[in-house]
Amino acid sequence: MRRWNGWGDDTVQATLPAGALDFLRERVGPARPPADLRLAEALAQVPASRLSPHPLVQTDAEARLRASHGQSLGDWIALRQGPIGRVCDGVAFPETREDVRALLDWAQAQGVLVIPVGGATSVVGHLRPEADEPRPVLALAMARLRALSELDETAQLATFEAGVTGPDLEAQLRARGFMLGHFPQSFDYASLGGWVVTRSSGQQSLRYGRSEQWFAGGRLQTPGGEWVIPPLPASAAGPDLREWVLGSEGRLGVLSDVTVQVSRLPEREQFLGVFFPSWEAGLAAVRELAQRRLPLSMLRLSNAVETETTLRLAGHAGTIAWLERYLAWRGCGTGKCLLMLGLTGSVPQVRALRAEAGALWRAHGGVGTGERLGRAWAAKRFAGVYLRNALWEAGYMVDTMETALAWTGTSAMVQAIEQAGAQALAALGERCHAYTHLSHVYPTGSSVYSTFVLRVGADGAESAARWRALKSAVNAAIVAQGGTISHQHGVGRDHRDALAAEKSAAGLAQLDAAIAQADPQGLLASGNLRPLR
Amino acid sequence: MRRWNGWGDDTVQATLPAGALDFLRERVGPARPPADLRLAEALAQVPASRLSPHPLVQTDAEARLRASHGQSLGDWIALRQGPIGRVCDGVAFPETREDVRALLDWAQAQGVLVIPVGGATSVVGHLRPEADEPRPVLALAMARLRALSELDETAQLATFEAGVTGPDLEAQLRARGFMLGHFPQSFDYASLGGWVVTRSSGQQSLRYGRSEQWFAGGRLQTPGGEWVIPPLPASAAGPDLREWVLGSEGRLGVLSDVTVQVSRLPEREQFLGVFFPSWEAGLAAVRELAQRRLPLSMLRLSNAVETETTLRLAGHAGTIAWLERYLAWRGCGTGKCLLMLGLTGSVPQVRALRAEAGALWRAHGGVGTGERLGRAWAAKRFAGVYLRNALWEAGYMVDTMETALAWTGTSAMVQAIEQAGAQALAALGERCHAYTHLSHVYPTGSSVYSTFVLRVGADGAESAARWRALKSAVNAAIVAQGGTISHQHGVGRDHRDALAAEKSAAGLAQLDAAIAQADPQGLLASGNLRPLR
Repeated sequence: MRRWNGWGDDTVQATLPAGALDFLRERVGPARPPADLRLAEALAQVPASRLSPHPLVQTDAEARLRASHGQSLGDWIALRQGPIGRVCDGVAFPETREDVRALLDWAQAQGVLVIPVGGATSVVGHLRPEADEPRPVLALAMARLRALSELDETAQLATFEAGVTGPDLEAQLRARGFMLGHFPQSFDYASLGGWVVTRSSGQQSLRYGRSEQWFAGGRLQTPGGEWVIPPLPASAAGPDLREWVLGSEGRLGVLSDVTVQVSRLPEREQFLGVFFPSWEAGLAAVRELAQRRLPLSMLRLSNAVETETTLRLAGHAGTIAWLERYLAWRGCGTGKCLLMLGLTGSVPQVRALRAEAGALWRAHGGVGTGERLGRAWAAKRFAGVYLRNALWEAGYMVDTMETALAWTGTSAMVQAIEQAGAQALAALGERCHAYTHLSHVYPTGSSVYSTFVLRVGADGAESAARWRALKSAVNAAIVAQGGTISHQHGVGRDHRDALAAEKSAAGLAQLDAAIAQADPQGLLASGNLRPLR
Repeated sequence: MRRWNGWGDDTVQATLPAGALDFLRERVGPARPPADLRLAEALAQVPASRLSPHPLVQTDAEARLRASHGQSLGDWIALRQGPIGRVCDGVAFPETREDVRALLDWAQAQGVLVIPVGGATSVVGHLRPEADEPRPVLALAMARLRALSELDETAQLATFEAGVTGPDLEAQLRARGFMLGHFPQSFDYASLGGWVVTRSSGQQSLRYGRSEQWFAGGRLQTPGGEWVIPPLPASAAGPDLREWVLGSEGRLGVLSDVTVQVSRLPEREQFLGVFFPSWEAGLAAVRELAQRRLPLSMLRLSNAVETETTLRLAGHAGTIAWLERYLAWRGCGTGKCLLMLGLTGSVPQVRALRAEAGALWRAHGGVGTGERLGRAWAAKRFAGVYLRNALWEAGYMVDTMETALAWTGTSAMVQAIEQAGAQALAALGERCHAYTHLSHVYPTGSSVYSTFVLRVGADGAESAARWRALKSAVNAAIVAQGGTISHQHGVGRDHRDALAAEKSAAGLAQLDAAIAQADPQGLLASGNLRPLR
């Protein structure tokens, strides 16, 4: 069963590698295991539901608690230390597209607010009802809508019900020889519809595309009716209405059906570990790889602190020590940076790409170490997040902040984010361990993805104060440096106030007009993306 | 100087290749040179301007006539045979972004409708004022806004004033070692801003991207104020407002500044001619090339009639006869189809791509003929359109229709378009010569681009009746087959009525809401994209 107050399956118990706690004690300070709320204590805080009965709606406290929290650090703190805060009044489980429409109509008639829920993996506060929302709140859970309803093998277009999660989606495609290739860290639980409406990006989006690229069409259930978007390969017939759905975060309608561009399973896939002597060298290399438009499947460059952290926490201390001696001999000593490079395609494509990429990374002082680190990374690509459970239980909490901007500002952004976070915590007398990688690269720029490890507070209020200080300082730094407030997590409520800087007042007025047109009565007015009006 | 009633520079006189007229006489019927309107006759039909004087506004009849017509066949017929119909009351030539804003304010105060004009190469009726528009009409010509205002070599982002035309844009970039790579057939005259607001696609969009891909950001001057879109490489911060501008066709504002993604000049470029024994073989090959995601720069597959037409009109009859004997010996006889395949990149990339693409086309029975046909195509890529002048003068007029859809429907669409056009003309007792190519391919589908050659009528009314019958029959066929009403030409007024099929009523309501928000008083209500309200 899924863990109610952390990541993943509750039978999986992650263990911190040897030395991890010493490492963190040195960087962040000593910590003690927090006294978590028990489930029964949390459920006792859930008030009675205000919904009238409906055959598809569950109103028990546990279902409501689970549907009202995602994976943001704020959600973790609420569930681990309390207060729980407001939860929804019920969870609807539609089984067909018609159920979705009927539930929207029912909620409208009952004066109930609707918040769609996919895999509940949001890290930006999409799911918790606003404290001051006067209406009862219904979570519309898409979990039972998971079928592959159509596969056009000629056009490589697959249509799914929108609630399908990553593993289920890929399994249904794999049985027919196809794949989507969308692999965010939340892959195990996140839903297809959620990926679309939050403009999600997977680890190999360099090859398979962000959701903007593979989202071909679908059906959006708006309060006023169904909106059908045909899967055209390209069109000059006015603005592309798919782009209204992408990033709409449940404010325009509920996405019930999604047509995606799929591809044949590749012949070969490799992930290579390449070390650079410095951040500057690695940055120049990934920029050139992106700008030469080499059809790689992944480029992920860690800064020096992240590289050190990865090696320290890898286990196998003896092997790592040997590797570091070799790297130092090749010119990659203190300050070295690790690039994980993905190659996917036919056998000759992978061979040619490896040769061309290799020539380029060597010109920048890069040292290839083959597939061993890559295989280790790939094996743990969806499991590493379980470490957050173990870290919390040792007294450390983790948050991630991310943006994207033009290459010209990349290094300044990395520095600004890490410094802003450290300073915000220092003002509270706390330290953090911060490190960064570029998770996605483009010809014109890259994402910047920073991880912060800090100490859990003595109670929920103290933890939340640390989290809020960190989050608002980093958001401000991102805006000041000209980055987007999110490259891959979305807006939710945590990033809403920072939108104006990148959208301009006129752009926000357009978003408001779109919402007002699709949902004039505010049935879906969760407060995600845009404030209530 | 630019020709006032046809394509291109008026000192360029295209000559039809030997045999062309015999070929058309056989296919379409005999024709006589039409008696064209002279410029003085056309100018005599232009009524007095209703605008008050403004230092940036020209009101002479010739400037107004030129700014009110694009390159649609309807525009040609009006200018060559009359009646001229309504023209704008004046043409503004802003020289700065501030001029654009001031002119919008002036027009608003004067109760004047504004229609932005870029290169006036529209083929879907963007420029002619609606007959029943009661207000005076001002054409806002962007021709003097052509500067490269910023080049960020690190991020490969270039910002131009939006009126810059293709050759001027590429020349400014080439001087710095960069290029955009957007090469529609209208390249010589079309403007950057026009490419963005009509979602234009160039011949090598497979490598360089459609305008959706390279349009990174910019400034839109809406009646209410300026809308600034930063050039972020990617973002999950809500819907992407660039997509509101792309395809807006002058209805939301005037695009004054455009930031584009550029790239380094490539080391090598090749265009190869490959013949397939049949349409089905060629179609299977291009689909597989697209779905294997080979980073080619162009794939353009002609059907058998287009292939035959190309060879007949190529000149060099002796060489062509020899080539055809060779191709027949290799299995490509009657019904053969020509693929033009573009390879662009570093020397090793081009070599590897050619080997991989070659293995694939040979597996489908394709016969490579090297670079000779490709060089001929590249040399004439922007000049071929001059033939339309010569054809008209011989009594034949040309129109093109285009769409895009999933691979599953490609062949049926080609047949439906060609048949619909032929039947519509047969009902008028006329014949046409129709042929088709796939100009752009994608993993999920392709464009379909059909050319129709038909006889000019005895007068403007007869020519217009033929054109309207052809256009409406083909539009209906495109909609019936599930294609978009335009892959690369835009909507204008000629495609407006067909939008509902692909956008759905809810989608159209969203477009109307966007327009109402940006332009509440209808300053820009040209009728392009959406009807007046």
